[in-house]
Amino acid sequence: MTNFVPTPSVPAPDIVRCAYLELVVTDLAKSREFYVDLLGLHVTEEDENTIYLRSFEEFIHHNLVLRKGPVAAAAAFAYRVRTPEDVDAAEAYYKELGCRVERRKEGFTKGVGDSVRVEDPLGFPYEFFYEVEHVERLTQRYDLYSAGELVRLDHFNQVTPDVPRGRKYLEDLGFRVSEDIKDSDGVTYAAWMHRKQTVHDTALTGGNGPRLHHIAFSTHEKHNIIQICDKMGALRISDRIERGPGRHGVSNAFYLYILDPDGHRIEIYTQDYYTGDPDNPTVTWDVHDNQRRDWWGNPVVPSWYTEASLVLDLDGKPQPVIVREEKSEMAVTVGADGFSYTRKDDASGEPTAVEGFKLGAQV
Amino acid sequence: MTNFVPTPSVPAPDIVRCAYLELVVTDLAKSREFYVDLLGLHVTEEDENTIYLRSFEEFIHHNLVLRKGPVAAAAAFAYRVRTPEDVDAAEAYYKELGCRVERRKEGFTKGVGDSVRVEDPLGFPYEFFYEVEHVERLTQRYDLYSAGELVRLDHFNQVTPDVPRGRKYLEDLGFRVSEDIKDSDGVTYAAWMHRKQTVHDTALTGGNGPRLHHIAFSTHEKHNIIQICDKMGALRISDRIERGPGRHGVSNAFYLYILDPDGHRIEIYTQDYYTGDPDNPTVTWDVHDNQRRDWWGNPVVPSWYTEASLVLDLDGKPQPVIVREEKSEMAVTVGADGFSYTRKDDASGEPTAVEGFKLGAQV
Amino acid sequence: MTNFVPTPSVPAPDIVRCAYLELVVTDLAKSREFYVDLLGLHVTEEDENTIYLRSFEEFIHHNLVLRKGPVAAAAAFAYRVRTPEDVDAAEAYYKELGCRVERRKEGFTKGVGDSVRVEDPLGFPYEFFYEVEHVERLTQRYDLYSAGELVRLDHFNQVTPDVPRGRKYLEDLGFRVSEDIKDSDGVTYAAWMHRKQTVHDTALTGGNGPRLHHIAFSTHEKHNIIQICDKMGALRISDRIERGPGRHGVSNAFYLYILDPDGHRIEIYTQDYYTGDPDNPTVTWDVHDNQRRDWWGNPVVPSWYTEASLVLDLDGKPQPVIVREEKSEMAVTVGADGFSYTRKDDASGEPTAVEGFKLGAQV
Amino acid sequence: MTNFVPTPSVPAPDIVRCAYLELVVTDLAKSREFYVDLLGLHVTEEDENTIYLRSFEEFIHHNLVLRKGPVAAAAAFAYRVRTPEDVDAAEAYYKELGCRVERRKEGFTKGVGDSVRVEDPLGFPYEFFYEVEHVERLTQRYDLYSAGELVRLDHFNQVTPDVPRGRKYLEDLGFRVSEDIKDSDGVTYAAWMHRKQTVHDTALTGGNGPRLHHIAFSTHEKHNIIQICDKMGALRISDRIERGPGRHGVSNAFYLYILDPDGHRIEIYTQDYYTGDPDNPTVTWDVHDNQRRDWWGNPVVPSWYTEASLVLDLDGKPQPVIVREEKSEMAVTVGADGFSYTRKDDASGEPTAVEGFKLGAQV
Repeated sequence: MTNFVPTPSVPAPDIVRCAYLELVVTDLAKSREFYVDLLGLHVTEEDENTIYLRSFEEFIHHNLVLRKGPVAAAAAFAYRVRTPEDVDAAEAYYKELGCRVERRKEGFTKGVGDSVRVEDPLGFPYEFFYEVEHVERLTQRYDLYSAGELVRLDHFNQVTPDVPRGRKYLEDLGFRVSEDIKDSDGVTYAAWMHRKQTVHDTALTGGNGPRLHHIAFSTHEKHNIIQICDKMGALRISDRIERGPGRHGVSNAFYLYILDPDGHRIEIYTQDYYTGDPDNPTVTWDVHDNQRRDWWGNPVVPSWYTEASLVLDLDGKPQPVIVREEKSEMAVTVGADGFSYTRKDDASGEPTAVEGFKLGAQV
Repeated sequence: MTNFVPTPSVPAPDIVRCAYLELVVTDLAKSREFYVDLLGLHVTEEDENTIYLRSFEEFIHHNLVLRKGPVAAAAAFAYRVRTPEDVDAAEAYYKELGCRVERRKEGFTKGVGDSVRVEDPLGFPYEFFYEVEHVERLTQRYDLYSAGELVRLDHFNQVTPDVPRGRKYLEDLGFRVSEDIKDSDGVTYAAWMHRKQTVHDTALTGGNGPRLHHIAFSTHEKHNIIQICDKMGALRISDRIERGPGRHGVSNAFYLYILDPDGHRIEIYTQDYYTGDPDNPTVTWDVHDNQRRDWWGNPVVPSWYTEASLVLDLDGKPQPVIVREEKSEMAVTVGADGFSYTRKDDASGEPTAVEGFKLGAQV
Repeated sequence: MTNFVPTPSVPAPDIVRCAYLELVVTDLAKSREFYVDLLGLHVTEEDENTIYLRSFEEFIHHNLVLRKGPVAAAAAFAYRVRTPEDVDAAEAYYKELGCRVERRKEGFTKGVGDSVRVEDPLGFPYEFFYEVEHVERLTQRYDLYSAGELVRLDHFNQVTPDVPRGRKYLEDLGFRVSEDIKDSDGVTYAAWMHRKQTVHDTALTGGNGPRLHHIAFSTHEKHNIIQICDKMGALRISDRIERGPGRHGVSNAFYLYILDPDGHRIEIYTQDYYTGDPDNPTVTWDVHDNQRRDWWGNPVVPSWYTEASLVLDLDGKPQPVIVREEKSEMAVTVGADGFSYTRKDDASGEPTAVEGFKLGAQV
Repeated sequence: MTNFVPTPSVPAPDIVRCAYLELVVTDLAKSREFYVDLLGLHVTEEDENTIYLRSFEEFIHHNLVLRKGPVAAAAAFAYRVRTPEDVDAAEAYYKELGCRVERRKEGFTKGVGDSVRVEDPLGFPYEFFYEVEHVERLTQRYDLYSAGELVRLDHFNQVTPDVPRGRKYLEDLGFRVSEDIKDSDGVTYAAWMHRKQTVHDTALTGGNGPRLHHIAFSTHEKHNIIQICDKMGALRISDRIERGPGRHGVSNAFYLYILDPDGHRIEIYTQDYYTGDPDNPTVTWDVHDNQRRDWWGNPVVPSWYTEASLVLDLDGKPQPVIVREEKSEMAVTVGADGFSYTRKDDASGEPTAVEGFKLGAQV
């Protein structure tokens, strides 16, 4: 039985969007090679311990902070709020939740002002800020536009053992669910939740957590993503392409998952849809639908289900990972005991059913 | 020891390009749905037993003939030759080779005139023709242009047990090798051979044969191929997507393999390179190079190696399939006993080598 | 001296986005050919007098209503509001402004419920509604996806004589300015204003008005727009391509302007940028900057400046057109007495300056 | 009455394709900025007077030589021939034609061996060579692939006063006509001629000549060309975009014309069609067809018709320019006395005809 996070009596901060991730990396030079030389993110500022990066169309100081540290992990999931007062609101909100809260008027990273960081009820280090340094928005700097250009930060994806618990907590915080994956027993495997008018600012993936599943940047068009694959091939690091490219069922976006030198997972993502209407229809997928994760039925590699990055507490120590107790999406869909269908009517529901299965995907 | 096909004393016909494939299908209505409704090939003519199809930029009568029959198979691999006299040359050439040869002034299919069909030394039904009916070239009929439009026939791909034997025979016939896959023991696993100025008009894939591995049509751009996947997802036939989309190492083309209702394999292909210079460099790939078949290191599904279509003799009976005696590409590269690398220098050559392998691809 | 529209004391309705346009057309069959056969908009419903159309990713009943009538004109610019109560708010808001207001519980068009229509202070027929019928969102119906698919309604564009007056009125209504075009004398030529998180839901173009300048639909990628041009060429209606394709300076979107059978202007549009942050930087362009309207410096055809569609009052009669008194953008930038530059520093400001001008564009 | 070039009694050399252009530029640093920094051509070799450039998929030493000189001009149009003996054939062929011929065993440029250069009957400096240094073919070097990457040299375009005379001479030399533009009086305005299996290796444009109209490089996809425009906008050199982007009627290619610092015209070009069959249908366009030069009916700027680069004789002196005596395409199609139609049936043939004309293009 899920032990829900209580709804605070004070109003939630008005969150605008996911804004940046702070990532601890163990070898800053190698990470720079990956994020700057390979992916072409733009350096706003850097010193020997930290690199501040932004995407092509960003006007705030950074979307990604790479900080050198002993253990690869995510140190902060930062959201921008609508007004300076919303930082106060965030502080009050989490205090009422009984969370550990830290407020810094001067911010936790360069370029960002008054901020609050919390260890949230799911164990994630969340940050809320309004004040931020504006920098050159490169939108029309096509002289700097690479063939695989990353133009926006799109979303975070968090692994948590109890998805309904996390979902309720995030809905209280003002997020709205665009899509989810369930089964007929009522188990929820994942949920996609947004503040800005896209499919998500963050998603919850059921699994051992709290962990960072991935951070996603978007490109303008699909060929930009293909170029990133091609470039990784040319650099002979195709083994860092973990999954894709493909078309998601959930979100309808064209996607790619790649791994940075520490194993942090980066998604490259393009062309989901508008979700800004108050009654935007929520899409629920059957966990056994073979097209939910890849619209073309291509298999999800096991590592995508099992691997993720540690997250840090406010002292910079890794949060302990709690095991998911409910059924895992991998177990119910992959391998000999799993079950998936392409055409629902073809499927008998038994492992021997062959109609509607992806040919050649069995191992 | 390879038993080579002798080089005839008479000149080979001057082959222009691969021109059409005649395919026997068991359910014409289902095949029409696949090739016309799904893939959008254009019907030049049809009757209750046969459909003549062409691609968007084609001006000859057809690139694909679907003929209703009891056993799914390839009935003819037809090449266009440069002059009417080259049909005579083809007849003389194969007669000297001792092959069974049939000449029909009125052609074997509608729209095609004087032709010769042979059972070639590898067991394939080859056709050579010059005379052909010209039809409307749809090149600028953008009112008929679908999002996944197939604009040209690109190539055939044939499975044959002894690749060097087939290669020598095709080189005598005037084909030139653009790329091949070998190992350090001198085994050849596949070869790509062209007459027109692309990477191939046909390729030889080592395996049990003679069989048709696939026929390939090209699109203008990569997004056209992605649309075909998306459409198959929408039609809930994603289980007919066998492999891809991806970027080939060999040929550098962006590709997709799908299966028609009889299991005939169709490749959708775009953006290989110019090969028309007399000294066009031949590219040789190491069979253990994990990027040779997919530049991004994505795995080749086993069915792609093992499944293929029967081919017919001139009486319309399936040719017996002869087992390949040499090592198979699948055996040496897939699974526990196979070996592949991404970065050659990382690889110790032993099955335990982990550097440079595709993460998550092991099963 | 601008006679500003007063700010009402009651709160403005919370507008979500531009939602649909009602267009009067004189020949419904011809218009159907244009919007359905050529552009591929999807018919939700139709009868002998009216066609209700929606874009690929839309889930509300329609984005465009074509209604047969004697005079080609725009009958309503409809916005969706956040709650049913916002319709009340709209009614009160415009009543206080002294505008003519009509409320219909059953809506003004099929598929839409309780709505209010007004003759706004600029003379435009604005509609506000919340209740709307949900219909199938075609987002993943790639079996219906055409090569030039229109996936969303993006914005309206209105011609009005006094842009600062219109801007102040729309800002009061909750719109925020993303970009504008001015000159050093303080004249404003155009302004782009948004509620959803794109560059605009509507724009104000300085000129004789009130008139509809255009309605814009977006595509996923740039090639989709090129296909629409190609298809219009194939149909031999290239004379209905008025301007483009090109890259806008303002908005950074890739664009095309075409004309429907009545001369209503349609823009096809893709890839502007995110504007959802509260401090999204406003971009101001110099009217003499040759790249403001087309980033590549291609000339704007005169008709684009001078032609626009009439708008109707609530009785269905055309609103009288009031002449713009300030300088026109065309006059100050096109032809012998106009002035434009590509590189500001090159330009002497005199008509004889040749550096930085578009070669070949002089006529 | 055309004074045709006689057909030599000796066989023509077997030309494979257009291979490189030697261009004299007046400011090497500025030209380097244009071809290397802007367009991303790859430097094979360079010294203080000369830069040798190649496209992404090229394996011969260069496709473009930039040589510093006092007068901007084209110094050589170089074709590759099939065998070393074809250089002898070329020498004999032009000697019989009475042309000035120069043979250099060591070649005229670095990287190229035994070559013959001639002043051809039309006054152009043609070169023929077989021997050439192979260099790294960058086809899969996606780490070097820019967003606007030029992947192949596609063709030359030459201005000559008498197109039928030039056409007959080039047909004798083995070129085949893919398309041409004529009028009902039998005047030929332009012809496209190929050796490789594309629409052209060179084209003849009727006008004052001999002059170089342009050299064309191809990209993989249409968005690559759009990126070049976008980049020129970002660099504030949009005034060097002369015409386009657009879709050609002739050739069906997507195109762009830009001007280098000396005014040499470069076309960027993609997606014409296969012409390798012996009976490839020739397409003839009516000079009054408004879609022949731009499929979307966009106007051709006057400079595109009138401006072109000088060509040099074998002493490096500019060839005198001879005036075209026949009607000019510009005069018969542009401006008050010209005539064009979009739909042939609409056109009365009189200047007052308004149906089927491009709206907004009149000046």
